[in-house]
Amino acid sequence: MTNSHPLTPCLLLDTARMTRNIERMRIRLQSLGVALRPHVKTCKNIDIARQMIAGQPGGITVSTLAEADHFFEHGMTDILYAVGIAPGKLAAVAERMARGMALRIILDHPQTARAVASAAGQLDTRFRVLIEIDADGERAGLRADAPELTEIAATLEQAGCHVDGVMVHAGGSYHCNDADGMRRMAETERSSAVEAAGRLRRAGHEAAVVSVGSTPTATFASDLSGTTEVRAGVHVFQDLVQAGLGVCRIDDIAISVLTEVIGHRPADGTLLVDAGWMALSRDRGTADQTVDQGYGLVCNEAGRIIEDVIVTATNQEHGIVGRRDGTSLDLDEFPVGTRLRILPNHACATAAQHDGYWIIDSPDQARRWLPRCRGW
Amino acid sequence: MTNSHPLTPCLLLDTARMTRNIERMRIRLQSLGVALRPHVKTCKNIDIARQMIAGQPGGITVSTLAEADHFFEHGMTDILYAVGIAPGKLAAVAERMARGMALRIILDHPQTARAVASAAGQLDTRFRVLIEIDADGERAGLRADAPELTEIAATLEQAGCHVDGVMVHAGGSYHCNDADGMRRMAETERSSAVEAAGRLRRAGHEAAVVSVGSTPTATFASDLSGTTEVRAGVHVFQDLVQAGLGVCRIDDIAISVLTEVIGHRPADGTLLVDAGWMALSRDRGTADQTVDQGYGLVCNEAGRIIEDVIVTATNQEHGIVGRRDGTSLDLDEFPVGTRLRILPNHACATAAQHDGYWIIDSPDQARRWLPRCRGW
Repeated sequence: MTNSHPLTPCLLLDTARMTRNIERMRIRLQSLGVALRPHVKTCKNIDIARQMIAGQPGGITVSTLAEADHFFEHGMTDILYAVGIAPGKLAAVAERMARGMALRIILDHPQTARAVASAAGQLDTRFRVLIEIDADGERAGLRADAPELTEIAATLEQAGCHVDGVMVHAGGSYHCNDADGMRRMAETERSSAVEAAGRLRRAGHEAAVVSVGSTPTATFASDLSGTTEVRAGVHVFQDLVQAGLGVCRIDDIAISVLTEVIGHRPADGTLLVDAGWMALSRDRGTADQTVDQGYGLVCNEAGRIIEDVIVTATNQEHGIVGRRDGTSLDLDEFPVGTRLRILPNHACATAAQHDGYWIIDSPDQARRWLPRCRGW
Repeated sequence: MTNSHPLTPCLLLDTARMTRNIERMRIRLQSLGVALRPHVKTCKNIDIARQMIAGQPGGITVSTLAEADHFFEHGMTDILYAVGIAPGKLAAVAERMARGMALRIILDHPQTARAVASAAGQLDTRFRVLIEIDADGERAGLRADAPELTEIAATLEQAGCHVDGVMVHAGGSYHCNDADGMRRMAETERSSAVEAAGRLRRAGHEAAVVSVGSTPTATFASDLSGTTEVRAGVHVFQDLVQAGLGVCRIDDIAISVLTEVIGHRPADGTLLVDAGWMALSRDRGTADQTVDQGYGLVCNEAGRIIEDVIVTATNQEHGIVGRRDGTSLDLDEFPVGTRLRILPNHACATAAQHDGYWIIDSPDQARRWLPRCRGW
């Protein structure tokens, strides 16, 4: 591998693991009878997204309009922009819809609904909207029984917009301690969405879409009846946070950062490597989990985990690698020039620090690179 | 401003503040009689780097070979690559030197010196090296009195490489609590470098370069005699970490992230904005300072600070904005669609999340965008 990759640090992708992760989610949702609308904010690459939607209806979820543009240019038209719409972006949304993008937006506030209604008139655009529902108080959304739900729907429909349904994201699943907690969170997510959609239908709206999901709730849900689609994205790569939650095993993690030892710190028995927070991200998502993985778990160049060795600290382009318990490494085992691979806390954050992926298991062992889209 | 910028979130640059910051550092180092070799890992833009080196000898400091390439393509040739060299990059360094880049590398380990010596022969390249010296035990470098110092120099010179001198970075300055501590750290940085250079010279090496610096030590040093250049970079933009250290005032901070309110959270009196960690970075550099600024300090669209209002939490594309003490905001003051600006904890980290800067004070108020280089 040493000579088939560019300079360190760089992002490696194990496509065999990725394919297994995609397949596992496909089988799981098939058994629950619900379609996947993959969230492509994790991969931000068209080839990977195509693999994720194989056998699915074809819609995707994005977190930015830049992602929407990227995937639309590559032929994907059914796109849910799953961040509460900023009124300042409505002209950009309308312009994309006029070009044929079947773009849905989400919102949860009567002020936003009025802004959308107003823009619908000014821009002569029938926006397609999902109303965001809250299941856990974590981030955004209306409670399923909130009076604003039908108020918003009425405002939108009076302006000629489509109230296509509801969406829920139970981010609280990331704070669950066990499978039972995750299962209950998945059920809360499901029931909130179904209840809200029912209220909209009883008020005369079509509300055909009942969209739920996160990788943890998709993995642990025991029943998704009444929902029409599940959004999940990080399952494509998995990461140490997901492993810490019990969503995957560590050896499911499909991306890693290749780095090289550039120095030794004999005073504390640690290594310096050329992957700092610029390559790993500042994400410390495992800090509050049972096992704190620092800035990432260290493997040898072949990908075998070096037990209890983590990136303990980072500067912009430097990482410090040491034992989790603070005891010294045998520095002779890691001469300068040794290559290591770092598994990420959070795949979305680490991958975002890179412009693309180097595939490590392409059949011909040749360099193959998959680019990522960026920006907003 | 609303219509002269692209979609939120985006990175804004106040060039009047930047120019003031650059000028302040220029005057300071002039009074100390030392040249600036600006670190361009913060700005990663050629126009800004040109402004930073105006009136200076012209050399720059980089943290990646991608930066070296970018600035070399724009005519800068004297480049210090100030991260301990990975042996796997020596062929890439030699190739750049052959194309005319006056590229210096750094190292601190006899193993690295042997790798460089070996590559010098194989690649027929006389590498130019600064030996990295440690002043504070924070990251890398040999102690000034370490026996390896002259051993490394001898190894390099026997292979025909140039031992150009020494470099020190006192990252420990970021843990100083007051000006006196910072001044002492600057003096330790200076004296370590001067001592090490003296040892090299007494051993018969030229060691003409004595390179020190960080923005805090450059700002507080009272004497830099014996040094030949100072490296500083974040001073160009400044940030909340620097303000917390007393290096600058908050109103010196030249970059901010423009964002828009996308929702209200009445349960806890907070706002949702469309700048999450993807736009702000995960950097929490003020977490251990006297005033914790969360993920950034909030200003109105005109840049006026909203006292004690910070980004308290982030998801990928969502930020939660609230009061530092947890009391409720008056949400009516921030209707959906309100634009805010977020000052960064760490300019290097936040800027790295963006592909470029939107200038907010160009004379003609037209859109002007400055791109950043990326990668390794």
